[in-house]
Amino acid sequence: VIDLNSDLGEGFGIWRLGDDAALLRLVSSANLACGFHAGDPSTMGRACVAAAAGGVAVGAHVGYRDLAGFGRRRIDYDPGELADDVLYQIGALDGLARRAGVAVGYVKPHGALYHAVWDDPRQARAVVAAIRSYDGRLAVLGQPGSALLSLAAEAGLRAVTEGFVDRAYTAAGTLVPRRDPAAVVSDPAAVAARAVRLAVDGEVAAVDGTVVPMRVESLCLHGDTPGAVALAGRVRAALDGAGVPVGPFAARPMAAVDG
Amino acid sequence: VIDLNSDLGEGFGIWRLGDDAALLRLVSSANLACGFHAGDPSTMGRACVAAAAGGVAVGAHVGYRDLAGFGRRRIDYDPGELADDVLYQIGALDGLARRAGVAVGYVKPHGALYHAVWDDPRQARAVVAAIRSYDGRLAVLGQPGSALLSLAAEAGLRAVTEGFVDRAYTAAGTLVPRRDPAAVVSDPAAVAARAVRLAVDGEVAAVDGTVVPMRVESLCLHGDTPGAVALAGRVRAALDGAGVPVGPFAARPMAAVDG
Amino acid sequence: VIDLNSDLGEGFGIWRLGDDAALLRLVSSANLACGFHAGDPSTMGRACVAAAAGGVAVGAHVGYRDLAGFGRRRIDYDPGELADDVLYQIGALDGLARRAGVAVGYVKPHGALYHAVWDDPRQARAVVAAIRSYDGRLAVLGQPGSALLSLAAEAGLRAVTEGFVDRAYTAAGTLVPRRDPAAVVSDPAAVAARAVRLAVDGEVAAVDGTVVPMRVESLCLHGDTPGAVALAGRVRAALDGAGVPVGPFAARPMAAVDG
Amino acid sequence: VIDLNSDLGEGFGIWRLGDDAALLRLVSSANLACGFHAGDPSTMGRACVAAAAGGVAVGAHVGYRDLAGFGRRRIDYDPGELADDVLYQIGALDGLARRAGVAVGYVKPHGALYHAVWDDPRQARAVVAAIRSYDGRLAVLGQPGSALLSLAAEAGLRAVTEGFVDRAYTAAGTLVPRRDPAAVVSDPAAVAARAVRLAVDGEVAAVDGTVVPMRVESLCLHGDTPGAVALAGRVRAALDGAGVPVGPFAARPMAAVDG
Repeated sequence: VIDLNSDLGEGFGIWRLGDDAALLRLVSSANLACGFHAGDPSTMGRACVAAAAGGVAVGAHVGYRDLAGFGRRRIDYDPGELADDVLYQIGALDGLARRAGVAVGYVKPHGALYHAVWDDPRQARAVVAAIRSYDGRLAVLGQPGSALLSLAAEAGLRAVTEGFVDRAYTAAGTLVPRRDPAAVVSDPAAVAARAVRLAVDGEVAAVDGTVVPMRVESLCLHGDTPGAVALAGRVRAALDGAGVPVGPFAARPMAAVDG
Repeated sequence: VIDLNSDLGEGFGIWRLGDDAALLRLVSSANLACGFHAGDPSTMGRACVAAAAGGVAVGAHVGYRDLAGFGRRRIDYDPGELADDVLYQIGALDGLARRAGVAVGYVKPHGALYHAVWDDPRQARAVVAAIRSYDGRLAVLGQPGSALLSLAAEAGLRAVTEGFVDRAYTAAGTLVPRRDPAAVVSDPAAVAARAVRLAVDGEVAAVDGTVVPMRVESLCLHGDTPGAVALAGRVRAALDGAGVPVGPFAARPMAAVDG
Repeated sequence: VIDLNSDLGEGFGIWRLGDDAALLRLVSSANLACGFHAGDPSTMGRACVAAAAGGVAVGAHVGYRDLAGFGRRRIDYDPGELADDVLYQIGALDGLARRAGVAVGYVKPHGALYHAVWDDPRQARAVVAAIRSYDGRLAVLGQPGSALLSLAAEAGLRAVTEGFVDRAYTAAGTLVPRRDPAAVVSDPAAVAARAVRLAVDGEVAAVDGTVVPMRVESLCLHGDTPGAVALAGRVRAALDGAGVPVGPFAARPMAAVDG
Repeated sequence: VIDLNSDLGEGFGIWRLGDDAALLRLVSSANLACGFHAGDPSTMGRACVAAAAGGVAVGAHVGYRDLAGFGRRRIDYDPGELADDVLYQIGALDGLARRAGVAVGYVKPHGALYHAVWDDPRQARAVVAAIRSYDGRLAVLGQPGSALLSLAAEAGLRAVTEGFVDRAYTAAGTLVPRRDPAAVVSDPAAVAARAVRLAVDGEVAAVDGTVVPMRVESLCLHGDTPGAVALAGRVRAALDGAGVPVGPFAARPMAAVDG
């Protein structure tokens, strides 16, 4: 079983981003923006209802407080303040999710915070502390090898790894930086094949041809362009065709929060 | 037993408002701003820790999204969006409160929202719906006779009434509007006496001398000026002197949210 | 000569609203959001450059401070604070416009503020005061019969009237409220014909058939849906076909601000 | 003649920071927050009126968009977006200042942006570009040796140097980092003496005793604590006692913007 996750609910007020409805038919986990880089409460509430209706797991896509920069600008947060901001976002989403009949099952950092927790132990530790203080049964979704996931595991949280179907990897198993022209895999057939190989064989071909073991529990699909949605559909179809069941990894029960 | 409540945690970022430490020694319930009119997550987190340490109950002081106006400007919210905003705030605070070892026990609307739910059934209903969808064991703190409290009671929520020790009442039991020079009672001795009379006898003398029955479970103390803190201290001393025990009305157990 | 105006630059950060490029080919005046209900500085800067390149006049589309509500929720501002907010927005846009080689030529209130200044003299007076304090050569764009325009004229500002090509009017010359099913004229041919009649004959047929004199200097075109852009194109074509020249009313020279 | 500058208008909405009234009696230049890290339009407007009344020059204290962090957290801005944000802030303040009868005379970066432009040429260049695009007659206030001032001078802007009376310097003329216990000079007599020496002799004693030439046109006084205001008063008194005239360096005339 492989999980497919995607960023949803990335609008704010009157603004929309991406095609949430299309992606909800393809993925098993929805990373929902929590109001700091995107996602006002009504957008969040609607996304929770749609995810619940589609049987899609809900995760808190926590980010820096930066609506104007969409959470994509690195901010040198004090770790204590970062933990507070993350905890605030999780609680806020969980209330809206529970109204919709689902509990937040996991947390994934967004944008510049996602990059920061790759190797910044202070920010990674702050995120882990916030998650743990909310509910030790929450999973943490991130990159294999990241400071985030190793600190999460140390803290007793379930660390869930994800791979990127349309990003090139180095022989060391890290992502090829975006500034490199080879960073993105754009051929749809290649992307679909990589998705199946990641899910079935737990490996990926690096840019230099090396076969890199990469056992991930989830694959991240982007959806903020029309082409990306079509690509996501192709990935899903390839997994279905290969007989790989798609389903969420997260299973924090409603009872966990309802007592 | 009478509850004393006050607005706390009304800073934002570097800014502070009022003397939280002084008030926490006087009151039994802390209405904490939740980020929309005041109260960033770190301010909220510190206030929760301080309230928990002082044995003071924590309530969500929910407000309009209006930092620049401190939530004091009436906003014509769509009721559905208002409910979403309120639910978001409650959940956000509850996460921070639970980290500090307390659960949010009640909700009180702030500023212009407090005034709106006096007689605007659409906004009052939205606030009640948000509270109920979060946890039916939450209490609602408001003015006797308000649309908020009658709708809360109808919805099965515990409706808790509060009185104002330094505000004049009409013979009909409503507050004298602030634009009226007689709106505020400023003599400290009179304020303290009114507090005791409200707590012991369940009545207040109206501006025209009529004695108005006013059975309230909580008294609201203001604290955003140095003089107000001294006044609050005098009220507390008067209640102590009259042998009136001060204690919180709210008792939503941690277990309610921890399962 | 008739002016065509439209709301542009209504994105924020990563978010976009409407098809600015398409509308800039049709209109002669661009109402640019100034950061309070939409429009971060970079969005504003790009819109100024595009307007300047297209020979389109730039106006400050000032609104309430309400990104989450897109400035569409009535806020009970203190008039002094409203004047400050409006003045701030005008100055901010003018700096960005001047960098692009144009000066802000006029001001038009947005959303709920537009509705407020129809008949709320306190808010209308605040807007007029802000405009006048910035530069007495700025024009004010609004509805004929509004408090805004009469106060603007009294204050010595140029008051420019606008009509709505796709909105129904009453026999009294006011807009049919949106809640009325007849509020919007949706037949494209009818819309185009109304535009020409407004521009050429200075009149409009009210919902009850009465012919209402309506001499306006500008027509407002909406552009926030694909259909609206097509409709705007049809209006422009009809005006061109009828030999009505389209051009901006505003002519505040760069020299005014550059000394 | 020496200029004394201080950060003023650092409140937001209901919140205040520092004692503006006290400082306005001591300084000749007021660095006014412009809404991004502090300073809503009404706070800015009042500060402009107060500065104008006191004959104090007005500067735009531009900062990152970060109210919650008071602009003290480094943000990895795209330079183009930073330039837009800075230009927006200057224009916004200038409108409010001109209403009060003064024109913004200079620009000084705030907080984390001030630190960034010390040695980050991309951010420094963005700030300089924004200033220059607004008005080439604006001065730039900053640290001697900073990337900001050298790029400003290259761009033809007037670069004005400032010294810190209560901060220790290294023999190289740079500030001792704050984490060093010796970073702050706290003895009031020493601070006053250093101010006079900087103003009269253009030099400062470094932590190791070396006398470092430091010709500055302005001295920065802090005012966000009661003690700081007293210290500022002592510095002003010492300068007055030494016969050093205090006066603003900035002289961008109103005519510059009024045409």
